[in-house]
Amino acid sequence: MGHFKEITLDSRERAELIKLDEHVAKAIADSGVKDGVCHVFVPHTTAGVTINEGADPGLVRDILARLAQLVPQNARYAHVEDNADSHIKAALVGSSVAVLVRDGAPLLGAWQSVFFCEFDGPRRRRVLLRVAEA
Amino acid sequence: MGHFKEITLDSRERAELIKLDEHVAKAIADSGVKDGVCHVFVPHTTAGVTINEGADPGLVRDILARLAQLVPQNARYAHVEDNADSHIKAALVGSSVAVLVRDGAPLLGAWQSVFFCEFDGPRRRRVLLRVAEA
Amino acid sequence: MGHFKEITLDSRERAELIKLDEHVAKAIADSGVKDGVCHVFVPHTTAGVTINEGADPGLVRDILARLAQLVPQNARYAHVEDNADSHIKAALVGSSVAVLVRDGAPLLGAWQSVFFCEFDGPRRRRVLLRVAEA
Repeated sequence: MGHFKEITLDSRERAELIKLDEHVAKAIADSGVKDGVCHVFVPHTTAGVTINEGADPGLVRDILARLAQLVPQNARYAHVEDNADSHIKAALVGSSVAVLVRDGAPLLGAWQSVFFCEFDGPRRRRVLLRVAEA
Repeated sequence: MGHFKEITLDSRERAELIKLDEHVAKAIADSGVKDGVCHVFVPHTTAGVTINEGADPGLVRDILARLAQLVPQNARYAHVEDNADSHIKAALVGSSVAVLVRDGAPLLGAWQSVFFCEFDGPRRRRVLLRVAEA
Repeated sequence: MGHFKEITLDSRERAELIKLDEHVAKAIADSGVKDGVCHVFVPHTTAGVTINEGADPGLVRDILARLAQLVPQNARYAHVEDNADSHIKAALVGSSVAVLVRDGAPLLGAWQSVFFCEFDGPRRRRVLLRVAEA
């Protein structure tokens, strides 16, 4: 049986990375699952989730700046809203990650953090977590 | 025990996004799984799968146009065929997504659709779906 | 119950794709799992994992060259180290893939290989594999 959890976040910028490490660790601890997988899923189309280095805030700015360079907000888009870039960034980054669970904790590398990726904030957002043994 | 299903699609354009929502919902319903995960996997190297907004066809065109701008078909490539761009787009988008299952249905956001991403059509393509409780 | 395995790789270039097919097949065979999912997870922030064509070494060079064009090493970055590009490439490619397991073997397409993506080598690297029935 899997253990399901939903959390709510409030982003504060149009584009922003928000660490989910404590939420992921708590969902795993609360589930009681010792070995398994935790799926972190973002049910939005202008946001995503990724795993990257959590130590240097400069790197977070670099990731967002490069994405903005690859997918500018003000290019010519057909989309009826002004956030086509946000959708395209979400497609590049992805809407879920799978975190392995070992000994009741997330099995991440020493430098890895799980980041919610806001591409069209500020907004209230949801993140879905599912922890299961298999 | 997981439930496995294979579907066949016929794409009609070189680059095209094709909605898989009904296939995903049916695979989950047919499996009888109430809570779990549905993996949607594309066994091709010039196609992928992504989750994004399904309401505006203009946005679909924007996603494809931006990918074509980032990875042009006619740049200089070493690949022996003329579809290096298709492979690289597939690497950016990814070849699988994980959809959470809740109450016997896909747990997607209000605006989310699952899209097969054709990058080297038109062709007959396969999509593999696996639904499991854990 | 899932079956967990860790392997070690030595990359030889700064940017390089290394095939993991044999490791994935062996992890699945050793697990005894007949039907399920194998998660391949990279616990590093300047490397990733992807699935793409394994037949043409020219295509591998194309993928790496295009990523280097999209995310140049020598742009202006805020990151304190000289590998911001490596981190950003990892964010684009992703840090895990899910491979379906069928009849005790990886269910990959005829042309698909699983590749470890080195973006800041040469280094000793780890790859985590988890095979489970669900």
